[in-house]
Amino acid sequence: MTLNVPADLQLLDAQDALRHKRDEFLVPDDIVYLDGNSLGCLPRGVPARLAEVTQQEWGEHLIRSWTRNAESAQDWMALPDRVAAKVSRLIGAGADEVAVGDSTSVNTFKALAAAMSITERRVLLTDADNFPTDLYMAQGLNRLLGGSWEIRTCPNTEIMEHLTPDVGVTLFTEVDYRTGRKLDMQGLTARARELGILTVWDLAHSAGAFPVDLNGCGADFAVGCGYKYLNGGPGAPAFLFVAGRHHDAAPVFLSGWMGHADPFEMARTYSPAAGARRYLVGTPQVLSLSALDEALNVFSDVDMNVLRQKSLSLTDTFIRLMEPLAEKHPLTLVTPENHDERGSQVSYRHPDAQNVMKSLIERGIVGDFRTPDILRFGFTPLYHAHADVWRAVQGIQAVLKGQK
Amino acid sequence: MTLNVPADLQLLDAQDALRHKRDEFLVPDDIVYLDGNSLGCLPRGVPARLAEVTQQEWGEHLIRSWTRNAESAQDWMALPDRVAAKVSRLIGAGADEVAVGDSTSVNTFKALAAAMSITERRVLLTDADNFPTDLYMAQGLNRLLGGSWEIRTCPNTEIMEHLTPDVGVTLFTEVDYRTGRKLDMQGLTARARELGILTVWDLAHSAGAFPVDLNGCGADFAVGCGYKYLNGGPGAPAFLFVAGRHHDAAPVFLSGWMGHADPFEMARTYSPAAGARRYLVGTPQVLSLSALDEALNVFSDVDMNVLRQKSLSLTDTFIRLMEPLAEKHPLTLVTPENHDERGSQVSYRHPDAQNVMKSLIERGIVGDFRTPDILRFGFTPLYHAHADVWRAVQGIQAVLKGQK
Repeated sequence: MTLNVPADLQLLDAQDALRHKRDEFLVPDDIVYLDGNSLGCLPRGVPARLAEVTQQEWGEHLIRSWTRNAESAQDWMALPDRVAAKVSRLIGAGADEVAVGDSTSVNTFKALAAAMSITERRVLLTDADNFPTDLYMAQGLNRLLGGSWEIRTCPNTEIMEHLTPDVGVTLFTEVDYRTGRKLDMQGLTARARELGILTVWDLAHSAGAFPVDLNGCGADFAVGCGYKYLNGGPGAPAFLFVAGRHHDAAPVFLSGWMGHADPFEMARTYSPAAGARRYLVGTPQVLSLSALDEALNVFSDVDMNVLRQKSLSLTDTFIRLMEPLAEKHPLTLVTPENHDERGSQVSYRHPDAQNVMKSLIERGIVGDFRTPDILRFGFTPLYHAHADVWRAVQGIQAVLKGQK
Repeated sequence: MTLNVPADLQLLDAQDALRHKRDEFLVPDDIVYLDGNSLGCLPRGVPARLAEVTQQEWGEHLIRSWTRNAESAQDWMALPDRVAAKVSRLIGAGADEVAVGDSTSVNTFKALAAAMSITERRVLLTDADNFPTDLYMAQGLNRLLGGSWEIRTCPNTEIMEHLTPDVGVTLFTEVDYRTGRKLDMQGLTARARELGILTVWDLAHSAGAFPVDLNGCGADFAVGCGYKYLNGGPGAPAFLFVAGRHHDAAPVFLSGWMGHADPFEMARTYSPAAGARRYLVGTPQVLSLSALDEALNVFSDVDMNVLRQKSLSLTDTFIRLMEPLAEKHPLTLVTPENHDERGSQVSYRHPDAQNVMKSLIERGIVGDFRTPDILRFGFTPLYHAHADVWRAVQGIQAVLKGQK
């Protein structure tokens, strides 16, 4: 696609402080990929790292890799901690407050089980439109607890009013996966703490997308995803944050040997490791975890405030360029125009969204359809330029014209 | 190491029906690797598969790989099922009775939670010397259940006597990770069923090591490991078996979106998928799962009865060659000589086992030390020859001589 990108957008790209980061990814040039919030692009360092882990670490050093180079913390045993340190910087947490491994779903179970065990209250407040696995994991945990909890829901636009003193734990996703609406995590967490409510934040669409400051907010627990804005690969290991103040108070329920204080002591009784390491469970999936470890290196020289500014510039540009289309077609912008309430995606409702997205993908504009009627476009400041936004809107325009 | 391998062992290797399988693995020739029961050797097909999954499936097709080639079930969504089908053949299960993903520890939690929810009894019988994570996961689950269960232990040599009508669930590992002793799974399961006891079998040292027939035994639940005899790579995804008769009776407690009947319906309430697919939880770690998928292809032309005969021939040979050493040194064979009671490893007690193993590894004889005093040697019929057994014993002899 060669398109006449407007001069103002070309200028924004020329001045982009992050423009060099695109070269660190394999960004297919036959499509406009606006789905990094489902699966981030491949960082170019990953294939070589995976080849090394496979051929040398597994193939040649075999079992010795679990402890080899332990003096420099380059052993597999320390791999989850190395990754946790890189994640913690992006979410405003201490390195010993983050455990990397398992899936977001399993980590949600761990966080909820821990939170629910340290309050006397029996109400979990969440959002009926939360990402389904959050709801399902809460439902499953409550089944295991004999249904002793009330799972109460409220619209995520009305959380503040629903923070009442009978609520024990909240489970909300900072950025809504459909609308891209970003919650006031700081304000909601502060209010929750005033009322003695424990917060569990799902950062699936936050980590790596903009600065997150869990400790600055006073958050209690958080979970997040390795394969969206962290670019760790399909189904990459997820992360769990538990504020240090809860480590000794909250029992570990998924107490596996990798979270034991000394796994190879082979003791008969579980004793938790120090810090968030205790929330590891089984043997980590080293191949997937190594890919995530390598992918996170892309962030090492990135100022997350600069990344946020670029993200807003990309989504602002998209919204502006889409305005004429929204006037002509049955498109309704559902992502807030207010910067404070916007994540790194832009979504529209369209009565025939599923077919529109199918046509867009066939044309090489890869976004997401989300039930029932959402067109979702994700923007990743590490590898998107304003020119991509322009190309996307040209494609959307052509598809919408063809729809009529 | 060039050694004069005795003619009888050379003959056994020449007649070995599985000798061609060794070429399908990277087997380091500078060591004798007797630790495939900790981490199996690298199947040669894996690096190319991983490169393809990374470069093409992730890098180029990106999010589309989740559904691409779905008509031929080659999409990522179907990957867990494809792997489950390959595992099921090795353990005597139906393909729809096996779910592949998560760790053995997490799967143990799923199996125990399910089993414990469908009995009125409140006693879990296990082995105090069971692999620690099995014990830890049972302890964690019981914490979550308010300590309402009694976790009763017995020596794994006395299980039959401890199967009493107050026991609700058993959790045993078929092959003891220290001694290599193999339980009578058939007889124990039959007796358990007579008494209305539900069985959870840990197949960590069974799957891929010899024929397993879960349905032939009438087993209820089982878990197992992808990185030992299945050669799936470090921390490879694990598997869970749930007998079909329990699918609708046992609630799913780790109810994540990947186990939902229709994940992309994004329904607010969990509805389990058909069969064991319901026991998937979060998004699978595709890189690690793809390595396991490829590794399992090695088994496609293997008759597990032939593999078992070779395993016994290898361990018989090892025990026989070690006899003179056991007479001269403080070595006590703890693996049963009776074939029916032996897995695919041989272990000795030695008062200075930790240092002996350290010296052995330095000399290139890679086995395992296990607390407090166990020297453990694992044999993998897919890539070991009797000549390896000979080389190993020569090395052990030299080290034990040097010890004195």
